[in-house]
Amino acid sequence: APASDKNLTGLVAATFTPFTSEGEINLSEIGPYIDYLTEKQGVNSVFVNGTTGESMSLSVAERKILAEAWCQKAKGKLDHVIVHVGCMSLKDSQELARHAEQIGADGIAVIAPSFFKPSTADTLRTFLQEVTSVAPTVPFYYYHLPDFTGVKVLGRDVLEGIEKLIPSFRGLKFTGNDLMDFGQCVSHSQPHWSVLYGVDEQLLAALVMGAQGAVGSTYNYMGCHVSKLISAFEKGDLIQARAIQFKMQELISYAKKLGFDLGVNKQLMNELSGLSLGPPRLPVMPCPHTHILSIVQKYHSIFPEC
Amino acid sequence: APASDKNLTGLVAATFTPFTSEGEINLSEIGPYIDYLTEKQGVNSVFVNGTTGESMSLSVAERKILAEAWCQKAKGKLDHVIVHVGCMSLKDSQELARHAEQIGADGIAVIAPSFFKPSTADTLRTFLQEVTSVAPTVPFYYYHLPDFTGVKVLGRDVLEGIEKLIPSFRGLKFTGNDLMDFGQCVSHSQPHWSVLYGVDEQLLAALVMGAQGAVGSTYNYMGCHVSKLISAFEKGDLIQARAIQFKMQELISYAKKLGFDLGVNKQLMNELSGLSLGPPRLPVMPCPHTHILSIVQKYHSIFPEC
Amino acid sequence: APASDKNLTGLVAATFTPFTSEGEINLSEIGPYIDYLTEKQGVNSVFVNGTTGESMSLSVAERKILAEAWCQKAKGKLDHVIVHVGCMSLKDSQELARHAEQIGADGIAVIAPSFFKPSTADTLRTFLQEVTSVAPTVPFYYYHLPDFTGVKVLGRDVLEGIEKLIPSFRGLKFTGNDLMDFGQCVSHSQPHWSVLYGVDEQLLAALVMGAQGAVGSTYNYMGCHVSKLISAFEKGDLIQARAIQFKMQELISYAKKLGFDLGVNKQLMNELSGLSLGPPRLPVMPCPHTHILSIVQKYHSIFPEC
Amino acid sequence: APASDKNLTGLVAATFTPFTSEGEINLSEIGPYIDYLTEKQGVNSVFVNGTTGESMSLSVAERKILAEAWCQKAKGKLDHVIVHVGCMSLKDSQELARHAEQIGADGIAVIAPSFFKPSTADTLRTFLQEVTSVAPTVPFYYYHLPDFTGVKVLGRDVLEGIEKLIPSFRGLKFTGNDLMDFGQCVSHSQPHWSVLYGVDEQLLAALVMGAQGAVGSTYNYMGCHVSKLISAFEKGDLIQARAIQFKMQELISYAKKLGFDLGVNKQLMNELSGLSLGPPRLPVMPCPHTHILSIVQKYHSIFPEC
Repeated sequence: APASDKNLTGLVAATFTPFTSEGEINLSEIGPYIDYLTEKQGVNSVFVNGTTGESMSLSVAERKILAEAWCQKAKGKLDHVIVHVGCMSLKDSQELARHAEQIGADGIAVIAPSFFKPSTADTLRTFLQEVTSVAPTVPFYYYHLPDFTGVKVLGRDVLEGIEKLIPSFRGLKFTGNDLMDFGQCVSHSQPHWSVLYGVDEQLLAALVMGAQGAVGSTYNYMGCHVSKLISAFEKGDLIQARAIQFKMQELISYAKKLGFDLGVNKQLMNELSGLSLGPPRLPVMPCPHTHILSIVQKYHSIFPEC
Repeated sequence: APASDKNLTGLVAATFTPFTSEGEINLSEIGPYIDYLTEKQGVNSVFVNGTTGESMSLSVAERKILAEAWCQKAKGKLDHVIVHVGCMSLKDSQELARHAEQIGADGIAVIAPSFFKPSTADTLRTFLQEVTSVAPTVPFYYYHLPDFTGVKVLGRDVLEGIEKLIPSFRGLKFTGNDLMDFGQCVSHSQPHWSVLYGVDEQLLAALVMGAQGAVGSTYNYMGCHVSKLISAFEKGDLIQARAIQFKMQELISYAKKLGFDLGVNKQLMNELSGLSLGPPRLPVMPCPHTHILSIVQKYHSIFPEC
Repeated sequence: APASDKNLTGLVAATFTPFTSEGEINLSEIGPYIDYLTEKQGVNSVFVNGTTGESMSLSVAERKILAEAWCQKAKGKLDHVIVHVGCMSLKDSQELARHAEQIGADGIAVIAPSFFKPSTADTLRTFLQEVTSVAPTVPFYYYHLPDFTGVKVLGRDVLEGIEKLIPSFRGLKFTGNDLMDFGQCVSHSQPHWSVLYGVDEQLLAALVMGAQGAVGSTYNYMGCHVSKLISAFEKGDLIQARAIQFKMQELISYAKKLGFDLGVNKQLMNELSGLSLGPPRLPVMPCPHTHILSIVQKYHSIFPEC
Repeated sequence: APASDKNLTGLVAATFTPFTSEGEINLSEIGPYIDYLTEKQGVNSVFVNGTTGESMSLSVAERKILAEAWCQKAKGKLDHVIVHVGCMSLKDSQELARHAEQIGADGIAVIAPSFFKPSTADTLRTFLQEVTSVAPTVPFYYYHLPDFTGVKVLGRDVLEGIEKLIPSFRGLKFTGNDLMDFGQCVSHSQPHWSVLYGVDEQLLAALVMGAQGAVGSTYNYMGCHVSKLISAFEKGDLIQARAIQFKMQELISYAKKLGFDLGVNKQLMNELSGLSLGPPRLPVMPCPHTHILSIVQKYHSIFPEC
C-alpha cells in the first residue's frame, strides 16, 4: 500500500527552506536534510512549505520547485511528504494543489487565508473546498493556526460536515492552545483521520487528549528526544514523558526570553544539525549569533546525549 | 494537624455567591451549599469570593460577611476554605487579608489587579507581597488569570523568588491555556506548594503536566464526574479519563454556543443543584431561562447518572 | 444660576490624587492644587477620582474624603467639580453617587465596569441607570474609555435612549480614537449635553468633529498651552491650533518612548507644578527620576514660555 | 511636467477589481470605471490593486495585467495611477515593482507584509527598501494599515530616515485612528511628500491635522460629497464640512450594523454606480442582496442629490 494510505502519525518535521547565503533556494541541501532527519532525529515524515518553511515569503514558482525536490529526494527514505499549498490567493493555492498532485505528494495542507480573514467556518470550509477540488486524489489536511493567522474559527467548527464537501479530507494539524477545541476535534474525528498537534512545548497535553502525532519545527532538532517522550507516554510512563516535556519547555522558554522567532529557530537548526540552510528571508530577520550560541549551549546542557 | 498544614490538592469548587432574589447576600444558603458539595459532588474544598463568586461586584463589607460565614459553616465539613482577597485597591485587599487571618481561613488567594495592570512580574510580586504582609500566617495562593485580567505576566515569572518575599506562599491557581508556562510552574515548584489548574474543560492536559488539583466553577455541579476523571488518571486509565473529559467538553462547548458566561453558569447551578443562589449581580446579567433548560437537558443526556 | 446648570465646556483637568510620601491621601495639597490650576494653567474645572486620580486604587472611604475636600475647596474658585463614582461594584458606585449628591458635586461620572465586562449597550446602560438612580439630582456624565476597560460597546450605542432611562444625563467624556463613534455622539447629542474629548494628543481632531470641551490629565500642566489651541481653533486659525497640537504630540510621543504611564505622568506634574502630590500607589509604580528630568527638559524646550 | 512630478493630493479612489460573474478579471470594465470616477464622482486619481482591489486574492500575473490596463486606460483621463505592489513575498513585490516601472505607473505603494510581521521599524524599512530598489525611478508611497495587518510599528518610526534609504520615497497612505502618530507624520514630512489619510469616516479629523489628501474605497461612490467636504474645509467652513462628515458617518455606521465588509462595499459600488464589477473573490464573501438594497436606500435618503 502506498504511504498515503497509512494514517499520518508520529513525528513530522515542519521543514525549514534551505537558502544559499544569497537567499536563493538551495535544493542541494534537501538530500542531506532528509538524511539528517531520518538518521539523527528518527523523524520520517515532513511538512514542507509551511510556516517554518517561510512559504509566504516564497514565490509560487519557488514553492513548486521545492515541493518537487522534497518529493523526489524523499522517495524510499520518508514515509510522508505533506506539501503545504495554502496562500492568500485561492488561485495560487489551486495551482500549487494541482502541482502537488502531479508530483505525487503524500498529502497537501492548507492554512486559513489571513489577509482577508474568513469570519465563519462556512466561508473557510468553502475556501478549503475550492482549493482541494482541483486535486481530489491527494489526502488533505487542514492546518489550524488561529493565533498566528487571527482567524477566529474553531477547529471543530471547520471539521463539521467537511468530509461531505471534501472527500479527500484526512485530518488536521492543530496548532493552538485551546485544548477543548482540540479535544472536540479528536472526539469528533473518524478512524481514517489524523489529528496532529503543533505546539511542541505542550505536546504531552495533546497526547493525553488523543493526538495521533505531532507536526512542529523543533522536531527538526529535538526529534530524537520527543520520540522518547512519545514512547514513554505510550508505555504509560507519564513521569518520564513529563520529564522530557519539561526539558523541552526549559529550552524553548530560555530561547523565548532571547526573542525566539523563525530567524532564531532556523539558525539554531543550522548550528545543531551542521546543515547549511542559510539565513531566513525578509521580513524574517537573521538573529544575533551570540544569542544562537547561548541557546545551543543551553541545548547541550539540557540534552547532553543524542 | 490543621487543614492548612496539608497541601491543597484534589477538587476545589470556586463557589457562587448566594443572593436573595432581591440581590442581597443570602447567608442561609451557605450551609445547604456545603452539604450539597460534600454529599452530592464529593467536593471538600472551596475557593470563596473569587471570580465565580462575583467578588468584584461585592463591597468589602459583604466580602467579609461572606468569608466569615463560609469559614464558620465549613468547620468539620470541608478540608480547605480558601478566601480570595484580591481587589483593584491594595488597601481593600489588605483589609480583607487581615480579616481572613482573623476568621481562620485556611488560605488566601490574590488575583492581579486589572484596572491598572502590572507590566512586570516584579511589580505584581510587590503588590502581592504588600497584600500578604498584613496576614503573614495564612497560606497564600497566587491566582493566575491572564486572559481575563489582561495582565500579561507569565506565571513562572511571578513565582521566581516569591518565597523569599512572601514566606507564606504555598502555590497557585493557574487559569490559562499556556501549558508551557504551567509546566514551568510545576517543574519549578517546591514540595510544599500546590499547583492547581483552573480551566476545567482541559483539566486532563494539566494533570498530565503535573497539576496537583483543580479549582473551578463547574466542579460545583460536575465534581462527581471529575473525581472519576482524576481517579482514572491516577490509575493510569487514560482512555477513561479522556472519555470523561470529552463529555465535559461536549457540555461546555454546547453551553458556549448559547453564550456561556457567569450568569448562565450560576443559573445552571441553581437548576442542577436545587439550591437557591439567586440571580447574578449587574454587570453580569441573568440568562434566558430557555437557554438554561436546554443546557440542563444536555447535561442529563451526557451524564445520565450522578 | 448654579454651576451645574451651565453646560460643561472648555478644559477640565483630570486630577491626580495627592498622597503623602507614605502613600496616604494628603488633603492639604488640594487647595494649592486648585490655585495652581486656575492661576497658572487657566483651568477652571476638575474631574476628580478618575483614572488619573487612581480611583480604583482608593478605598470607598478615601474616595469620599477626597471628593468632599475637592468640592469644599473648589467653592468660589472652580466652575465645575465632577466626581467620578465608577467602581467595579455597583453597590460601591451607588454609595459614592449618593455621597456626591450630598456634598453638592456639580456632576458625577461613571466608567463601565471592567472586570465583568458588559457585552451590550443595554447591560451597560442598565448598570449606569442603577448607579445614577440613587443620586437623581446630580448631572451625570458617562465616561467612555473602551481601550482601557476592554468594554467594546460604542459610545453612540450607550447614548441611545439614555435620557429616558437617566433623566440626569448630561453628556460624556469620550476617551478613544474612534472618531466616527465620537462624531456620532456629537451629531446625536442634545443641546443641554456636553460632549467632551479625552485623548489630549489629538484634541484638535475632536474639536473639528464638534467637541465642546476636553477632559485630560495633561491639562494639569499643559492647560495654558491648550487654551491657546482652543482659542486659535475657535478663531478659525487652524495653522496655529495645529502648531500647538504638534508640540503636545512631540512631548507626549517623547514621553511614550520612555514609558509614559500614570506613574510618569504624576511625577511629571510634581516637577512641573512644584506641588507635592507624592508617588503613585501600587500597582502603579513610581518612575526613574532620570526619565522625569529628561521629559521636563523636553517640555521646556518645546514650550519655552508659560 | 509629468503627473508624477506633482504632489499627490485631493481624493484618490482605492479601486475595486472588476471581475466577471465567473470571478475572472474583467478588463473591459476599467474604461467605464474611470469615466464614472471622473465624470460622476469628480475623482481624478486611483490607488490600484490595494486592499479594496483584493490584491492579496490575485495572482502576480493578474496584478500585472490589471496594473497595465489601469495605466493605459487612465492616460489623458486621470492625474495619478498609484499601483500597490505589496505582497507577503518580497520576490513577488519586487517583480510587481519592476513591472510598474515598466508600464509607467505614477507611483507604487507597499503595505507591510502581514504573515510574518516585522517587529521593528528597521525591519519594515529594510523590506520596503528591498522592494523599491528594483524600481528606483517610481515615486514610492508607504501604505500604513496597522489594525488590519497587525504590524504594530508607528508610521512616524517608519518615516525616520526613510529618504536616505529610499530616495524615491514620496509619502504615505495612513489608514489608522492614531492621530498623534498621523500628526507626527505630518509634522516631520518634507514639502515634496504627500501625507494622505485612509479612514474615510473620520477624514475631517485628518484634514485639520494636516492631511493633503485622502485615499479610500468609499470615494468610489461618495467622492462627489467628499469633494464638497474638502472644499468647505479649505474655505474654513467647518460647520459645512462637519455636516458632510456626519452624513458619511451615518451611512457607514448604518452599513456596519449590517456587517460592512469588502463584499458589501463592492456590491454597494455596483448598485450605486451601475458598473458591473462582479462579486468579490473568496475568502471575501458576497453579501445578501437585501442588505445592499437597504444600504442603498439609506444612501439616497442621506444624500438625495449627486
